[in-house]
Amino acid sequence: MPLVDVHTHVVPRDFPDGPADEARWPCMCHGENGHADVVINNKPFRAIDARSWDVNVRIDDMGRSGVTRQVLSPMPELLSYWFKPNHALSMCRYVNHEIADMVSRSSTHFSGMGMVPLQDPELAASELTTLKEAGLVAVEVGSNINGHYLGESKYHEFLAEAARLDLAIFVHALHPVGVDRLSEFPDLVPFAAFPLDTALCAMTLIRSGIAERLPQLRIGFSHGGGSVIPLAHRLGKGAEVTDNFDGMLKKSPIEYARDFYYDNLVYDAGYMSYLEAFAPEHVFCGTDYPYLIMDAEPADSIERAGAGDAMRWQAAHAFLNL
Amino acid sequence: MPLVDVHTHVVPRDFPDGPADEARWPCMCHGENGHADVVINNKPFRAIDARSWDVNVRIDDMGRSGVTRQVLSPMPELLSYWFKPNHALSMCRYVNHEIADMVSRSSTHFSGMGMVPLQDPELAASELTTLKEAGLVAVEVGSNINGHYLGESKYHEFLAEAARLDLAIFVHALHPVGVDRLSEFPDLVPFAAFPLDTALCAMTLIRSGIAERLPQLRIGFSHGGGSVIPLAHRLGKGAEVTDNFDGMLKKSPIEYARDFYYDNLVYDAGYMSYLEAFAPEHVFCGTDYPYLIMDAEPADSIERAGAGDAMRWQAAHAFLNL
Repeated sequence: MPLVDVHTHVVPRDFPDGPADEARWPCMCHGENGHADVVINNKPFRAIDARSWDVNVRIDDMGRSGVTRQVLSPMPELLSYWFKPNHALSMCRYVNHEIADMVSRSSTHFSGMGMVPLQDPELAASELTTLKEAGLVAVEVGSNINGHYLGESKYHEFLAEAARLDLAIFVHALHPVGVDRLSEFPDLVPFAAFPLDTALCAMTLIRSGIAERLPQLRIGFSHGGGSVIPLAHRLGKGAEVTDNFDGMLKKSPIEYARDFYYDNLVYDAGYMSYLEAFAPEHVFCGTDYPYLIMDAEPADSIERAGAGDAMRWQAAHAFLNL
Repeated sequence: MPLVDVHTHVVPRDFPDGPADEARWPCMCHGENGHADVVINNKPFRAIDARSWDVNVRIDDMGRSGVTRQVLSPMPELLSYWFKPNHALSMCRYVNHEIADMVSRSSTHFSGMGMVPLQDPELAASELTTLKEAGLVAVEVGSNINGHYLGESKYHEFLAEAARLDLAIFVHALHPVGVDRLSEFPDLVPFAAFPLDTALCAMTLIRSGIAERLPQLRIGFSHGGGSVIPLAHRLGKGAEVTDNFDGMLKKSPIEYARDFYYDNLVYDAGYMSYLEAFAPEHVFCGTDYPYLIMDAEPADSIERAGAGDAMRWQAAHAFLNL
């Protein structure tokens, strides 16, 4: 039975040397037994292992977890929005090439998402053709680009180009709101702030009207969309009292929220089931493999939520047009 | 049948003149037919009317909506955390006195919440006795105090004093995270950013361990706790992989989240019902009266959610120890 995991991350085994003026250019520090540190700004950023780059290790793990296809995407910290655009472009091309190469090693097990230098939206849009030609089926986008949300008008041409090329957009939490306010609780950032940023991104896409103007564009959100459900209902009330924001939207924000896709990485069978009821057939499996808080038993999770093939693979196929 | 509305706001009819060095001290500009502008920083902050201060108008409205008791709390922008502590204290005493006065005009219709100068946590703690002696039953607290969340250690003595005096804490969204990132979408702030800040506040209260150490303290969150449910599940996973944050917590974050109270102002019958299932008998009615996005038909909302007396009045009585 197919089980497609749309949310898995990759770090290439090595990086090319970076420009001297980009202190945050990543490099790898390899240890024993396939363990390695991603080093950024001369500090260990994350301890990883061969699961991040080795397709054979991944295929073994898939055999154990029952995942039949992994969709590979960059570790979000690789998204490189903070580099000069041409530097970011070279990182994007390198990572996209590495992911495409992993896919080519076993296209029965893997599909791939790429990344683009969104700090320069025009450059990002033009890069989509190359990304698609490499065989990648979607673009991973940070929940914000240096503090700017994807709903902002400067990204609309990029989104239109993704729609034109039939590339899905997968929004992943990155450098979220609230970090400055959580200085006494730094470990709340990944657990409590990530989901907020994803949801804010979704709200800007609705409020801007771009979800209205590009109905064919498929946008998916990691971590179950974070806080999307409670926000969508409140924004729905906002639309009600403002005549759909002075006629900007043709239908309720809730309808646009239901048209988005979401992964099922919500860590609760009841909420997973509730999310599926909110956006029927638009919730796909996503595990965050191979990181610490991944869902190690995705098939069980889906079963406990009472969900079936829609969540196991059909929503993923629809989202990625596989 | 009792119907207790825990979330209603008050603005006094007038304010005393403020200190010359406090530009944000509010004043009222009265128009015709009971309409008025709250003016802050020489700009109209919000258009209000006599419902904000006139108990007779409120009692008439309660007759229409079926609310049998309103709990009066300050409009959050009055919370005054941005003034010098002694200036804030005088505003707190003025507003608390006005609310206590409204309650005294018909204690069968009203209960009251006060406010304290939390920019000086020690002063805030010592003011709780005065607030209680005025007959107020709870304290309204902003979701953050000048960017600091209530879970931070500097507020723990204040929280302990509230518990000692049997005063409930009602957390209301205020100056939320994300405002700087939403500059292209300012109208998303009340709809999409408010609920995030409330939820982050809740997460810090859990993570800090104070909810553990003060089990008798009753804390309620406005707007259904905002994004609390998805965040609590994700934080639950965080606790799972960190041995409950190195033993800091005795039980899962989800259990603490269930012990909190929430109002039912979520604008969706299904989500209201889901919230009640998440925190059984801990969800009370809250309408945001008399503001634009208030729930004008709270009895209907509760009925459509399939909820009953627990949400109509029992949770409110438990929260406020009425």
